[in-house]
This record gives sequence, C-alpha cells and structure tokens, in this order.
Amino acid sequence: MSIATLPINPPSRLLMGPGPINADPRVLRAMSAQLVGQYDPAMTGYMAETQELYREVFQTGNEATLLVDGTSRAGIEAAFVSLIEPGDKVLVPIFGRFGHLLREIAERCGAEVHLLEREWGTVYPPSEIEAALASVRPKLLAVVHGDTSTTVAQPLDELGALAHKYGALLYSDTTASLGGNTFLADAWGLDAVTTGLQKCLAGPSGSSPITLSDAAVEIIQARKSVEAGIRVEGDAVRSDPIRSNYFDLAQILDYWGPKRLNHHTEATTMLFGARECARILVEETVEAAIERHRLHGTAMVAGLVGMGLELFGDQSNRMNNIVAVRIPDGVDDAKARAAMVADYGIEIGTSFGPMAGRFWRIGTMGYNARRDTVLLTLAALEQLMRRGGVPVTAGSGVDGALESYGG
Amino acid sequence: MSIATLPINPPSRLLMGPGPINADPRVLRAMSAQLVGQYDPAMTGYMAETQELYREVFQTGNEATLLVDGTSRAGIEAAFVSLIEPGDKVLVPIFGRFGHLLREIAERCGAEVHLLEREWGTVYPPSEIEAALASVRPKLLAVVHGDTSTTVAQPLDELGALAHKYGALLYSDTTASLGGNTFLADAWGLDAVTTGLQKCLAGPSGSSPITLSDAAVEIIQARKSVEAGIRVEGDAVRSDPIRSNYFDLAQILDYWGPKRLNHHTEATTMLFGARECARILVEETVEAAIERHRLHGTAMVAGLVGMGLELFGDQSNRMNNIVAVRIPDGVDDAKARAAMVADYGIEIGTSFGPMAGRFWRIGTMGYNARRDTVLLTLAALEQLMRRGGVPVTAGSGVDGALESYGG
Repeated sequence: MSIATLPINPPSRLLMGPGPINADPRVLRAMSAQLVGQYDPAMTGYMAETQELYREVFQTGNEATLLVDGTSRAGIEAAFVSLIEPGDKVLVPIFGRFGHLLREIAERCGAEVHLLEREWGTVYPPSEIEAALASVRPKLLAVVHGDTSTTVAQPLDELGALAHKYGALLYSDTTASLGGNTFLADAWGLDAVTTGLQKCLAGPSGSSPITLSDAAVEIIQARKSVEAGIRVEGDAVRSDPIRSNYFDLAQILDYWGPKRLNHHTEATTMLFGARECARILVEETVEAAIERHRLHGTAMVAGLVGMGLELFGDQSNRMNNIVAVRIPDGVDDAKARAAMVADYGIEIGTSFGPMAGRFWRIGTMGYNARRDTVLLTLAALEQLMRRGGVPVTAGSGVDGALESYGG
Repeated sequence: MSIATLPINPPSRLLMGPGPINADPRVLRAMSAQLVGQYDPAMTGYMAETQELYREVFQTGNEATLLVDGTSRAGIEAAFVSLIEPGDKVLVPIFGRFGHLLREIAERCGAEVHLLEREWGTVYPPSEIEAALASVRPKLLAVVHGDTSTTVAQPLDELGALAHKYGALLYSDTTASLGGNTFLADAWGLDAVTTGLQKCLAGPSGSSPITLSDAAVEIIQARKSVEAGIRVEGDAVRSDPIRSNYFDLAQILDYWGPKRLNHHTEATTMLFGARECARILVEETVEAAIERHRLHGTAMVAGLVGMGLELFGDQSNRMNNIVAVRIPDGVDDAKARAAMVADYGIEIGTSFGPMAGRFWRIGTMGYNARRDTVLLTLAALEQLMRRGGVPVTAGSGVDGALESYGG
C-alpha cells in the first residue's frame, strides 16, 4: 500500500481569530528538543520548574500546580471528575458557549447541575450568584472566566469569598483569559483553575495547566485509590474511586510529587512547550504581558470602531484579547473570512450559537498581541470591506488604531 | 517574583529502556512547524492524511481511525468509556502490569470486570481465553498485546474469531508493540485498538492513535449525545450519555469526520508529530520496520546471552523490541543504572511488581532499533559489569551481537 504524503509544511497564516493563534517561535524551538527518560533528574527538574512557573502565571502559592496531558477541556474534566462525586451539586452560571461545556462535563461526572443563564455578552452581578449559592448550596461553583464565544469575562474577585461563605469551592476555566487579563488565583479565592496554551500563553493546544487550593486537594486526596498494577501494601484502595483513571488528580499529584508514582508517561514535548510558554510570560512579567494585551486589544477595538463596525457585548467586561464585531450587512461571513485567508493570509473567527453568522471574533493574543499584527489586520479588513461594497473611509481602521497607540 | 530558569536543553541520552525512547529527529522537526487554524483546509488535510497513515500502521480499512489527544492511557480510556456502559461485562486476561491497568480503567468506567491471571512472562493459550469467554459472556474482551512489564506479547490472531463467536468485541492495547511486531487489526478481527507514540513509533508521548471496527462504531454511535452549547435541532441527546466528554468517541468521530463538530481544539503540534511517526513507518514499510526491530532485538538478546545474562519470560512470545535480563548477583539495580547514565549516557530500565529490582529491561525500538545503539549498549554494559565485579568475558556481548548480525 502506498500513501504519498509530503513533509509537514503548513501555509503561512496570521491567526487573528479566537484561538488557536500562532505559537511563539521560542515555544516551537523548545518543543524540538530531544527527549529524556521520564524519571531522569533533568526531566523531573523540568517538571518542578514548570510547576513553579505556573504558580506565577496563576498568581498562586498552591503546591498542587501541574499539567494535565490533554487539551483545555482535559483540564476541566480532570478538575471536575476528581472533585465531584456522583450526586454532588454543582452551580454553573452560564453566559456563553463554554458555560454550557462546564455544565455538560459536570453532568457527565454525575453531578446534580444547577444553572443560571444570562444573555450572551453580559456577566453576572455577584448578588445574582450569591442568591443562587444560598438557595442551591452547591459543593462547587463553576464559572468560566473569559468566555471566548462572547468575548466578555465574568468578574471573579468577589466570587471566592461568596462561594466559601456558602461552603462551596470555586472553580474557573481560564483557557481564553489567562496571561492576557488580570487573574489572581489566591487573592480571589479560587480552589481550582484550569487553562490551555493556545490563547494568551502562545503555545499549541495539548497541555492543560491546572492549580488546586489546599481545600480542593484535601477533597481529592480523600478519594484516592491507587490503581491495580502498581498498588503496594498500605496504599489507599476505594470501592468508589474517582471515575476516571486518566484524570485521577489524586494519582497525578503523586506522579508530580516526591512519590513519582508511575501513572502516565508525561507528554515530554508538550511539557517542554508548556514550560516555555510560562517562561516567556514570567520573563516579560505577568503584569507587563497583561498590559501588552490591553494595549494592542484596545488599539484593535479602536481601529474596528474607526471603520464603523459595531461591537458586541458588555465592553466594560470585555477581555483584553478578543473582540466581536457585527458583520456588515451584505457581507457573507464564510466568503469574507475565506478571502481574508486567501488574499492576506489572515484568519479571523466566526461565532457560535445566538451569534452564529452575525459576528466576527478578532483576537490579539499571545505572540500575536503586537502592533504590526493589529495594523496589518485592520489594513486587510478595510480592503476586504471596500471590495465587498461596504462603505468605509480609507485608512479609518489603521488611523483609529494609531490614535489609540498615541501617535 | 523572579524565577530563574534556563532554556530547555536536556542532556544527551541514549534511551535503551522500555520507553519513552529517543524521538526520531524527523518527528521533532515536524513538531516545530508553525500552527494553522483548526478548520484551515491545510489542517483538516493533515488530519485526513494522519487517519490514512494510521490505517496502514494498524493494517486496517477502518474509517474510524484517528488520534485521541493524550498519552497512551488516554486512548485506552477513550475506547473503554465509549464502549462500556456501567454494568457491562469485560473480560481481562492479565499477564503483566498493563493488564492490571486495563482492569482498573474498565472498573472505573463502571464495568463488571472478570479477570484471568497468569504468571508474569507467560501468555494464554487461546483455549483458556475461550473457556472464560464461554462462561463470562462479556461485552468486551480486553487484552494487552505486548506488555512491556514482562516483555512478552499475547498472540491475538485467534482471539478476534473467538471473541465474536461468543458475542464479544475484541480490544487490544498495542502501546508497546505496534510498529515493531506483526499486528493485523483487520485480519485478526480487532474491534478497537489503541497505541502511543513513545515506543516503536519513535515519537514523544502525548498522542494516542486509535482504530475502531464498524461494530465498535455502531455501539458508540448509538450512545451519542451532542454536548450542550453546540447542540442543534435534531442532534442526539441522551439522559445516560458516555460518562466522559473529553473521551466521547461519538463526538470525537464527528470532529474528525465531515461534520467537523466543534469538540476540542486538536493538539496541532502533537498531530504533526503523530503524522510524521506514521509517515516514517509507511515510507520504510510496516513490514520492513518490523523486520528491523526483529533484527536488532535479536542481536541485543544474543549479546546479552553472550555476556552470560539470564533472560526472563517465554522467549517464543517475546516482543522484538524489548528483553528482560536478570540482574547479576551482587549488582545494585539503581546504582548500576545510574552509572550507565552518568558514565555512558545510556538509560536502561528497571522492572515492576514481581520482577522489581530483579530484572533490567532493555529496549531496541523505534529510532533506537539500530546496529550502533545495540553495540554501544552492550559495550557499555560489559564495562559496567566488569567494574561491578561480575565475571564477564571481554567482548562477549558485542561478539554475540555481531554473530547474530552475521559477522
């Protein structure tokens, strides 16, 4: 049998959608390093450094900070399946597509899920969430931080204290927001946080950093059951173990900890990438990276507004790294995006659910949160709209952005 | 906060243990390619090619051939959680550490697991498995192909027909064996097969290729429940969905299929790596790659025997790519392996369970199934034993291997 394939050689693309975005070349170089054995001191040293770096990225002192080997939703599922026992109550305030995902994953873990729902593009005042906490009394309050589907981020700063007041743990999915927006795991009282590399962290999808508070770890450790095949005298065994072996954080913590339990074989190359993502951020400083996302995200918005495009959602709670604009009347969503790729090599995003086909989502994040990417995207978009018959003042997008930059 | 870390720069290691082994540099180069959007035709084209390449690697015509985004055990769990409903009977013939893992994962999926157990280093005559199939009548017969812990592989050629005779599906975990030993998914009647990249496929851990027969797909599709957030009118919804969202193969099949369902964001860089692993194998031809593993594996064994080391397990069913030898009396396992790394940069493996501390496992697989790696490892091992006071004839290891090579 003959299968003729060519070497990997993807076309040049500037990825200015909701993610994945272009990886920082430093991350790709780190991922081209040769492997070492999984218990080589070099490898366990890299693991420990990765944990320390992500403590800084999450702004936490949590010892339990590590990588789950899978995409962002692997991290979500690891947190949920390890924390939630069937029948546990979980409260999910939904304000976009990824709130529905939290609901879905929690349900599949056997949780009794209670929902709040809000119009896409809005966020919850803490009082609404407090009222639900008081009436539901969940074990876990699970909230997306920034929901890429709507571009807005739920303020979390008061939710930790509220959750704890009603005896709940606070979980947040920060896949879309971390590294580009202020996020303070400890100061805000987060008990479990998961993320992904493919947005503001400037890496490829496939590794999910996670951090757990002592309270979360205590719940997880109480459920520990060491798997058959490596169990030794005295190890915990339970008849109702965590429902997943792959996502069993009790065992994964022992793999990352001094016991070095033989759980999975760590995805070495993804770890090299995840470590470099965090190194880049810590080198720049987390604060400076957030400010960079604010600066370029604001310029992108100014340019889009300058071109006369209408923004979507509560702008006071919009993430720094993404904006949604209404597709001008008469413009075909799919054709226009295809032309952006074909003629300019730039990818922007479409939308989901109630926004589908009506809004574009444009990101400025991670490696692509830069002045040149903002101006190029606006310049190309102007040409695209002009040729699509949309009235747009020549230079209005780039001028708007330049004005935002202050010159 | 300042965290001083250096760029990734792992020490040079020749990984001659049970895996992970050194990645083929071609795989690492493929993984350094820049990203493209997840629905870019270039990306979906790479996905389709990856599927076609793995059909050849698994020797199957199964349409349902794809990657699960995680390490080898992610593939196992995806197969089990998607196929097994709570209460289903699963039969696991155990003959090493990874049979215990299959049992563990099946139990966590809610299966009623029935076990056979055998002394490590032996395999089952088909009649023993048939007797158990007849009495248990399981939904799934789950067997490790090659169990790295014992170095032997269970012959599977008769098991598909036997499983089907008793109404069961046949699953096999081929993480340790695929690409280095004959494996014929279709000819042997396999219904579900999973693997990993880090052994004979010469890549890093972190992606799990999987293939499913039409019968397996039918069971999985009947369980489909499209997740909240992307569900549209007419989509399947079930009150008892597959217990995992991340490993829900019904949805993952729709992500890899023409529907391009928005499930996870494919781990692009791992996919680039997995594709290159298969390209290398298909270029060489699967048959030639297996013969290469046989050639160099046999030479390694001849060298070890030449040095007077005692082999472990049923040699007629040993995998081509790994051998276990008894650690000579008076030699400290951990100290000797540490010296191999410190003085020669070569890593060999220890053992688990009943073999722990008594046997070394030495692999010749993937990129490291070569003449130079075999001879170097034997030369270094001779020096190590000599200095450890073990009587060994000078040159006996290398001579044994050279004789096996035919001069």
